[in-house]
Amino acid sequence: MHESPLSSIRIVLVEPAGPLNIGSIARVLKNMGLRQLVLVNPQCDPLGPEARQMAVHAQEILETAKTVATLPEALHGCQRVIATIGREGNHDPSLRWDCEAPSLALPWLLAQPSALVFGREDRGLTTAELNDAHRLVRIPAHPDYPSLNLAQAVAVCCYELYQNQGVVLKSSRENQISTSEGLTPKGSPEAVSFEHLAAYYQHLETVLLKIGYLYPHTAASRMGKFRRLFNRAQLSSTEVALLRGILSQFEWALAGRAKLDRE
Amino acid sequence: MHESPLSSIRIVLVEPAGPLNIGSIARVLKNMGLRQLVLVNPQCDPLGPEARQMAVHAQEILETAKTVATLPEALHGCQRVIATIGREGNHDPSLRWDCEAPSLALPWLLAQPSALVFGREDRGLTTAELNDAHRLVRIPAHPDYPSLNLAQAVAVCCYELYQNQGVVLKSSRENQISTSEGLTPKGSPEAVSFEHLAAYYQHLETVLLKIGYLYPHTAASRMGKFRRLFNRAQLSSTEVALLRGILSQFEWALAGRAKLDRE
Repeated sequence: MHESPLSSIRIVLVEPAGPLNIGSIARVLKNMGLRQLVLVNPQCDPLGPEARQMAVHAQEILETAKTVATLPEALHGCQRVIATIGREGNHDPSLRWDCEAPSLALPWLLAQPSALVFGREDRGLTTAELNDAHRLVRIPAHPDYPSLNLAQAVAVCCYELYQNQGVVLKSSRENQISTSEGLTPKGSPEAVSFEHLAAYYQHLETVLLKIGYLYPHTAASRMGKFRRLFNRAQLSSTEVALLRGILSQFEWALAGRAKLDRE
Repeated sequence: MHESPLSSIRIVLVEPAGPLNIGSIARVLKNMGLRQLVLVNPQCDPLGPEARQMAVHAQEILETAKTVATLPEALHGCQRVIATIGREGNHDPSLRWDCEAPSLALPWLLAQPSALVFGREDRGLTTAELNDAHRLVRIPAHPDYPSLNLAQAVAVCCYELYQNQGVVLKSSRENQISTSEGLTPKGSPEAVSFEHLAAYYQHLETVLLKIGYLYPHTAASRMGKFRRLFNRAQLSSTEVALLRGILSQFEWALAGRAKLDRE
């Protein structure tokens, strides 16, 4: 592989509101050899004078940044998604226990179609948005004031990605898949894309609602737990196909049963 | 020791010109448990509205920041000094070979009266300023655009300090001096302070000029080489006392010789 292991990683900002931050982030992306910036519903002009001033020699990162309306659009085609979590959010406190250090988790994104997601300056990511990620990262910080500026948080994470790319370059020379400590090795052609996994979750929710396991008003929260469980398992395409096969079979059986009941 | 191993480290900015940078830096210092900000001849108002806006909940870091006129004043009392080097400076290219990665060098500052020095936004540090440091650090970055924004560079280094403080806490529990790989262990009561080392260099230069080894117009450049050599050796107070003893002895002998010549 002649491509840099960084070139397949997109940095996703959800509803960024500060043009100075967006410009600084464009600059640090270029500093650290990253190319893809994706903005989900930005709350300011990412090509205005403030952003351009902070980007300095990284204007092309701003100009080629992709703007999308929703996080799932931003994650389309990604096989690995890590979301960052600060202390500013209103999310489920139980999520904090799943957080990993950047140095441990971020190398897992290298050399894969993958995304690293950052939340709003003031409120971070919602629980629903966090549930789109396979892993969660928190930058270690002092408890007196643990909330980093968005651009600083992106800088720290991009720095970790850049300084860890050597691991992947080395292991790809040895024809091995790079993995962080404690992770099951997973071949990249096998890894499921974000949209296929999302389709599975949709399918699962539909079936569970149909059978009365889920109630419409509590479905989102319960589904969040399933998402986290499956995301942690880092499913392969084959495994997702198997799981969907079970659901289809179930639906077929239900339909047959309904038909029998009607007869 | 109950103090944090971070509390004895000062972050020194030489002639910073951007108030947004100074404010962002105050914030990330507090995020990473650092308290001491020292500004050498700042080119903007570090307590103006732009700096205050970026500092958010770290106003006290701005308010207690020390302003001094020269780098030696900022380093007074420090036993260990690391300077950061970017690609923006006009300094001696040979210095680049001595640069270390932040993760390797920065833990050496922990639990010591020490300083981490950052240069001007546009020109970095001069060769003379770099020669005041014991070690040099460069943040790894992509060759296409290796120059980081000042506040981003400070964020990356403070993050490395924060995440490495555990190493020192652990080893101080074991009554050991923490050292990075490849460094000779050096007891902290033994380590020479910046001003004693500076006095030695001044003494050496005086003697070398007196004996005609140095010429006034090339003294600074040649002394730079000696500084780098001795700084790399990380002299103890005892060693500096011994070296100064040699110089004094030399001067005494020269004076005696001169007296003999006159007689």
